[in-house]
Amino acid sequence: MSIYFDNAATTKISKKALTTLNEISLNYYANPSANHSVGIAAKEKLEECREKIASLLNVKNNTIYFTSGGTESNSIILSSLLWSKNPGDIIINKAEHSSIINYKRILIEKGYNIIEINAPNGFVSPKTLEKKLTNNTRMVVIQTLNNVIGSINDIESLVNVVRNKEKEINRKIFFHTDAVQALGKIDLDLEKLGVDSASFSAHKFHGPRGVGFLYCKNTNIQPLSKGGGQEKGIRAGTENLANIAAMSVALEETLQTNCDNVRTINDYIRNNLKARILTPKENSSPFIINFTLGNFPSEVFTRMLDDEGFYVSSGSACSNNAKNKGESVLLAMNFSPNHAKSSIRISFDKFTKIEDVKCLVNKINSLYDTLIIR
Amino acid sequence: MSIYFDNAATTKISKKALTTLNEISLNYYANPSANHSVGIAAKEKLEECREKIASLLNVKNNTIYFTSGGTESNSIILSSLLWSKNPGDIIINKAEHSSIINYKRILIEKGYNIIEINAPNGFVSPKTLEKKLTNNTRMVVIQTLNNVIGSINDIESLVNVVRNKEKEINRKIFFHTDAVQALGKIDLDLEKLGVDSASFSAHKFHGPRGVGFLYCKNTNIQPLSKGGGQEKGIRAGTENLANIAAMSVALEETLQTNCDNVRTINDYIRNNLKARILTPKENSSPFIINFTLGNFPSEVFTRMLDDEGFYVSSGSACSNNAKNKGESVLLAMNFSPNHAKSSIRISFDKFTKIEDVKCLVNKINSLYDTLIIR
Repeated sequence: MSIYFDNAATTKISKKALTTLNEISLNYYANPSANHSVGIAAKEKLEECREKIASLLNVKNNTIYFTSGGTESNSIILSSLLWSKNPGDIIINKAEHSSIINYKRILIEKGYNIIEINAPNGFVSPKTLEKKLTNNTRMVVIQTLNNVIGSINDIESLVNVVRNKEKEINRKIFFHTDAVQALGKIDLDLEKLGVDSASFSAHKFHGPRGVGFLYCKNTNIQPLSKGGGQEKGIRAGTENLANIAAMSVALEETLQTNCDNVRTINDYIRNNLKARILTPKENSSPFIINFTLGNFPSEVFTRMLDDEGFYVSSGSACSNNAKNKGESVLLAMNFSPNHAKSSIRISFDKFTKIEDVKCLVNKINSLYDTLIIR
Repeated sequence: MSIYFDNAATTKISKKALTTLNEISLNYYANPSANHSVGIAAKEKLEECREKIASLLNVKNNTIYFTSGGTESNSIILSSLLWSKNPGDIIINKAEHSSIINYKRILIEKGYNIIEINAPNGFVSPKTLEKKLTNNTRMVVIQTLNNVIGSINDIESLVNVVRNKEKEINRKIFFHTDAVQALGKIDLDLEKLGVDSASFSAHKFHGPRGVGFLYCKNTNIQPLSKGGGQEKGIRAGTENLANIAAMSVALEETLQTNCDNVRTINDYIRNNLKARILTPKENSSPFIINFTLGNFPSEVFTRMLDDEGFYVSSGSACSNNAKNKGESVLLAMNFSPNHAKSSIRISFDKFTKIEDVKCLVNKINSLYDTLIIR
């Protein structure tokens, strides 16, 4: 038996998305920036994909910029700050993904003042944000849905706090949200949220790897280099049309999917798991459950589950290359160091079967009874 | 009839590469940074690909970093300069690809002194480089093979000039080459060339879009953000394993291919084309022929060829998003503005047929006789 419970790290590409990738690779292989007929046909297909994604998200076409994924989408926004001759304060949620957190160093190097904000139990509080805003704040970066525990921030209220400050200081404050884990998992109305920009990655919603997009309605964003001028100079590099088309198909499929099975799974786990669940019951993604083993090391526990054919995660996959795994994220949420060291993430997709989940819960519970010293 | 002569802009993915992309997408879909068995299997496959590419290029495994393509590979090297507290001189070939040229602005903004160097007839002269080097030079950026006319720089001699200067000033000078157009087109011995880093893109050699690699033997290179720490922190973002594996297969195929047909095609064109050929006869890629129409606008001419089903390029595809197309590159090569405005690039691949080339040459010659005012 082999069951994959690590869909927050990456999902399997859907059949329809892969078919599209193949078709477009073979039939629209010209460079979309080339001026000949086949280049123009590729460009038209590219714009069709942009329209489709914009329409699915109910935003304007010109707010969608294709990128290589979530990390790059985040980095376009953060590295654009390096142009400033007059660096100010940047407020960053401490529970962000590493692609955000690791920009802190270069921003500090270039004279920015980084103001960190905690996310107790996974949530950045609008009141706390209000207190952190200064007359010198240039940008606020707060994720929509946390990748480690699945908590959903109240982005609309957080943006409102920022917009009120803007009125007070009579200057723009840029609000960026990493929404990589949110798309297809929760209702997402970008216009209503009011953010200036948001990052997305196709492989989190059964699209291909190596492609994503940046939603950005602020036209002042400047990349470090406009390169070949693709994506209106925001993201240079030959447009990855096949993957972009596959992403648009995967997004359509994802948004059409009924997620009732995932809610059933989530309820089952909450009612039957013996371990303490860190993922909040309210305002969280039904696709992620993070639980703690008291003080039993999560890496040992994941290996024991692995031996039984269950693939779960300690921390996020991206944090596995770092020394402290997902611990820093959990500490930023005010969970104890013991809980942080012993936390396990299980994450689902629309294909996850309740029978498999029951097997997993049984296994976790029986290991828990045997092993955990409480 | 419809014949594609724009392979320098992009090539069609090979069947074998596409098959590999499909297989890996379906069978190794876990995140290579995940710690469970399926993640580890994906990571092993990733390292297999790295070993294969390193072995094909006869370089060490740890010099290969997977990226999203040529533009990103170049930008990793150039943006790493933004860490410096003590910016110095950067020597940049004026005939570089836009992904290099467009970094000038941010580098100047951050205090660097950009020293430009011309490439008369497509070639940067080692003697000229020697004169441009200063005690303050930090980096030299010169492409291996020009994308517009196909000229091949004598990188080995250019690097030697830099290494001699290093001895004189007793300090490292970084040498980066954009080799995107060179791989699979000419013999390339990176160790022998002696560069510190080189950029590559899969879609230029019948691999998939959205993937490439950076060769870098200098471990001091620092990205702006290490993100999730993938590729030893040099290129963050979930590893695009399917495309990477497809790239490794495409590279193997490409390097095994006999290019005699391309040389025959090249000779045929040189012997039969009435227009003046700008691509040098010696030290140039057999895959690219750039010719000039005197003073007839290249955009009109490409459209006339397009009407007949021949897809050729004026300038490079990447420069089509800019106002001046490939003109600035040709001006940097000391060609006249008239030649720059009326230049056409035709580029081949290993599948290009001599019969199609004969049709193209006939059509160009007949249009040339009818239209060109000399």
